[in-house]
Amino acid sequence: MTKQTKTELKTVLLTGFEPFGGESINPSWQAVKQLHGQSINDHQVECVELPCEFGRSLEHLYQAIEKHQPSLVLCIGQAGGRSHISIERIAINIDDARIADNAGNQPVDITIIDDAPAAYFAKLPIKTMYKGLLEAGIPVEVSNTAGTYVCNHVMFGLLDYIARHFGENEESIQGGFIHIPFLPEQAVHHSGAPSMSQTTVVAALKLLIKNGLSSGPDLKVAAGTTH
Amino acid sequence: MTKQTKTELKTVLLTGFEPFGGESINPSWQAVKQLHGQSINDHQVECVELPCEFGRSLEHLYQAIEKHQPSLVLCIGQAGGRSHISIERIAINIDDARIADNAGNQPVDITIIDDAPAAYFAKLPIKTMYKGLLEAGIPVEVSNTAGTYVCNHVMFGLLDYIARHFGENEESIQGGFIHIPFLPEQAVHHSGAPSMSQTTVVAALKLLIKNGLSSGPDLKVAAGTTH
Amino acid sequence: MTKQTKTELKTVLLTGFEPFGGESINPSWQAVKQLHGQSINDHQVECVELPCEFGRSLEHLYQAIEKHQPSLVLCIGQAGGRSHISIERIAINIDDARIADNAGNQPVDITIIDDAPAAYFAKLPIKTMYKGLLEAGIPVEVSNTAGTYVCNHVMFGLLDYIARHFGENEESIQGGFIHIPFLPEQAVHHSGAPSMSQTTVVAALKLLIKNGLSSGPDLKVAAGTTH
Amino acid sequence: MTKQTKTELKTVLLTGFEPFGGESINPSWQAVKQLHGQSINDHQVECVELPCEFGRSLEHLYQAIEKHQPSLVLCIGQAGGRSHISIERIAINIDDARIADNAGNQPVDITIIDDAPAAYFAKLPIKTMYKGLLEAGIPVEVSNTAGTYVCNHVMFGLLDYIARHFGENEESIQGGFIHIPFLPEQAVHHSGAPSMSQTTVVAALKLLIKNGLSSGPDLKVAAGTTH
Repeated sequence: MTKQTKTELKTVLLTGFEPFGGESINPSWQAVKQLHGQSINDHQVECVELPCEFGRSLEHLYQAIEKHQPSLVLCIGQAGGRSHISIERIAINIDDARIADNAGNQPVDITIIDDAPAAYFAKLPIKTMYKGLLEAGIPVEVSNTAGTYVCNHVMFGLLDYIARHFGENEESIQGGFIHIPFLPEQAVHHSGAPSMSQTTVVAALKLLIKNGLSSGPDLKVAAGTTH
Repeated sequence: MTKQTKTELKTVLLTGFEPFGGESINPSWQAVKQLHGQSINDHQVECVELPCEFGRSLEHLYQAIEKHQPSLVLCIGQAGGRSHISIERIAINIDDARIADNAGNQPVDITIIDDAPAAYFAKLPIKTMYKGLLEAGIPVEVSNTAGTYVCNHVMFGLLDYIARHFGENEESIQGGFIHIPFLPEQAVHHSGAPSMSQTTVVAALKLLIKNGLSSGPDLKVAAGTTH
Repeated sequence: MTKQTKTELKTVLLTGFEPFGGESINPSWQAVKQLHGQSINDHQVECVELPCEFGRSLEHLYQAIEKHQPSLVLCIGQAGGRSHISIERIAINIDDARIADNAGNQPVDITIIDDAPAAYFAKLPIKTMYKGLLEAGIPVEVSNTAGTYVCNHVMFGLLDYIARHFGENEESIQGGFIHIPFLPEQAVHHSGAPSMSQTTVVAALKLLIKNGLSSGPDLKVAAGTTH
Repeated sequence: MTKQTKTELKTVLLTGFEPFGGESINPSWQAVKQLHGQSINDHQVECVELPCEFGRSLEHLYQAIEKHQPSLVLCIGQAGGRSHISIERIAINIDDARIADNAGNQPVDITIIDDAPAAYFAKLPIKTMYKGLLEAGIPVEVSNTAGTYVCNHVMFGLLDYIARHFGENEESIQGGFIHIPFLPEQAVHHSGAPSMSQTTVVAALKLLIKNGLSSGPDLKVAAGTTH
C-alpha cells in the first residue's frame, strides 16, 4: 500500500442489518463485521450495522456516509430462501411490508421519497461484479428485485442520496445492495432452506468490493431473467 | 348490455404472446383468445397476439392501442415456473436477455427507451385486483419484477406510451402486465413445474379486467416481499 | 355396459381423506367423491372418506374392502407443495409424524405392523398409469416416498392386507396410493404453493383407474430419480 | 489414542463417488478424501471412491468391506438440488435410471437383488446422527428416499451384504447412506441451486461418523414428512 495520510485514505462503507423476522442473528452483519478495518484496493473498509427499521435505517446510513465520505457504499441484507449471492440491479420507490419492522411499523404502498423517481438502477458495475464471483466459483445471480421491505428501502434511499449529492461529479461515488442467503445455523430451523457459509460470504464480499471499485465501463454479460 | 353506437363502446385491449423458448404453445395467448369479443363491465374485449420479439412486440401493441382506443390494456405473458397469477407492480428500463427472442436478437443491458425514466409503476389498481383473485380462491401474488426479457419490454413500452400520450388526462387509460403459470400440458415436460388450468386462468383474467376497470383509490393491502 | 347381476359387478374402491393440518378441505376427498357410483371399464366406483388418523384410517379401509370386495383399491391423499400427480411406488413400515394426527396421536419411529416387511411396492402397473397421464397432458411423476405420516400408513396397511389375504391369487386385486397437489383455493393461503384444479384431478383419477385395471405386464418407462 | 496393534484397530469405511451427470467433480469424493487416515472415536477412517455404475460400484464396495472389516460403513453421494445434508432412512430394491450411468447402462425397473426384500432400513442410529448435526448448526434432514439411481443401488447392496454376512451378530457392523448438496463451485452452473461448503460437509461427516458409532438405542425425535 502506498503511504497515505489519514485524510487521503479512501474508504468503502459496508453496512449490514440487525436481526429481524424472528432470527437471532443477521448473516449480513455477521459477515460485514469481519471486514471492518481491512484494506482492499487501497481503500479502508468501514462497517456499520443498520437498524431493521424504515426511516431510521436511512438516518444511520446517511450519517455514516457523511462521516466516512466513502467512494463505494455496499449495503448487505439477508434474503432467507435464496441460495445465491444476489447483486441487486434496481431499487423501487415504494414500501410494502408483509411484516412489521423492528420498530413495529408496517407501511403498505407508501412512497419512500415523494419527489424521487419510480426507481434507481444500482450505481455499480454489476456485471463485472457478477463475473468476478462466477469465476471464483461462488454462486451468484443478478436480481431484479430487492423486495419492498427495509432492504429495498435502504437501497433506494442510498441511491437517491447519491443522485442528489453528487450531481455532475457522480464518478466519485458508487453504491448498491447485495442480498445474501441464510447462514447454515439459520437454515437448520427452516426446512429445506438453502444456506451459504460465512467464509464463502466474506470471500464474496471482498471480491464484490474489489470489482465494485473497478473503473471503466461495465461488462456486457447476459444475466437477465425471462420473468 | 345497453345499446351503444360503435364509437361509444369502450374497449379493453388484452394481449398474449406467441410461443417462445422451445414451447409449442404460449398459455397467455391460449387464455386471452377465449375472451375475444366478450363484454365485461360494458367494455368489449379486443385480443391481439404479440410476437415474442424485442421492438416488434411494441410496434404491434402500439398499433392495437391506436386502433382500439382502449380504456384498459392488460398484457399477459407466460412465467414458466411460477405457481400463482402474478400482478406485476413495476417495469424497468432495460433489456437483458438470457436467450434470443423469436427474431434471434439477444440484447444485453440495453436501455429500452433512451429518454424514459428507470421504471414505471403499473397504472392499475393492483391491490384491488389482487384482493379480487384472493377472494375468488385463485392463487395470486403481487410480483416486483417482470424480468428483463420481452414481457418486461412490453410492459415498460406500454407504460411509457401511456405516460407520453395521456398527459394530464391519465385517468382515461389504465395499463399493466400479468404473468401466468404454465398450462398443465406444458408442465408435463418440465419436471416439478407448477401449472394452472386454462379455466382458472380465464376466470382470473375476467376478474382482473373487472377490477382493473374499477375507479376510486386502490386498496391498501399488504402484499410485498422482504426480498 | 353388459348386463350383470349385483354380485357380478366388479368394483373399484377409491378413498380420500378428511382435512388435516389446519386445512378446511382435503382435495383428495373433494375429487374422489365426484366419482362415486360412476362406472369405469365395467367397474363401479365406490368412494369412502378415511379419517386422518393412524390406526383408525386402516380400520375404515379394511371394512370398506370387506364390504365392496374391490378388484382395485386406490387411496388418494393430499401432498401440499407438490405440483404434479404422484403415483407412489413404495410404502414403508414406519410412522414418524411431524404433526399430530386428527386424534392427537403423534407416533415417532413406530413400526406400523410388527411382523411385516420393511416395505411393499405398490401393486399397480405404475408406469402404465404414469404414461397414461403423460399422454393426456396431465402433470405426473412417479414418487419414491409417500412420507411417514397417515398417507404412507394407509398405503402400507393396504398392501399388507392384500399380501396377507390374497396369497397365491394375487392377480384378483390391485392397490396403491396417489398423492395430489393442493386445490387452487388452498394454494391461495400458501405463498408460492403449486395447485391443480379439481377438474384436472378428477380426469387424472379416471385415467388412473382405467389404466390401473389394465392386465398384462407393466410398461418399462424410465421415471426414476437420481436421489 | 490408546496403543493398538494393526489388527486391533477398528475402522470406518467411508465411500464417495466419481463425478456423473456432466459434473467435473463429485462433492462426495471431494469431502470424503479429506478424512482418509483420520482417527475418530478410536476408529481409523478408510476412504474409497466408487465408480458411478450399477453393479461395479457394489463390487468395489464389497471388496473394500472385505479388506477393511469396518465397524461402520457410510456411503456418501451427491444430491444436486437438495440444500441440507440428508440422512437416508431406507433403500429400495429397484433400479430406475433417468440417465445412463458412467458405463452407459440405464436399467429401468430392474430388481437389484432377486431374493432380497423390497427394502432395507438404514442400519444406523439416524435420529442420533440427525440431532448431532442439528445441535452443531448444520442443515440436516432425514430423507425417506435415496432415489432409484446408483446411490440407492449402493445403499441397498450395502444393507443386503450386512444382512447376509452378519446374521445374529449384527451389532458388529452398521451402515447407511448420506446425501450431500452441490459444492458452491458446482451451484455456479445451476441457476438457483443450493450448495454447501466443503468445510461444512467435512465437519458434518465427522459428526455423523462419531454419532453413527454410538451404541445404545436410537433417539426418538420426530423428523418425518407428511408426504
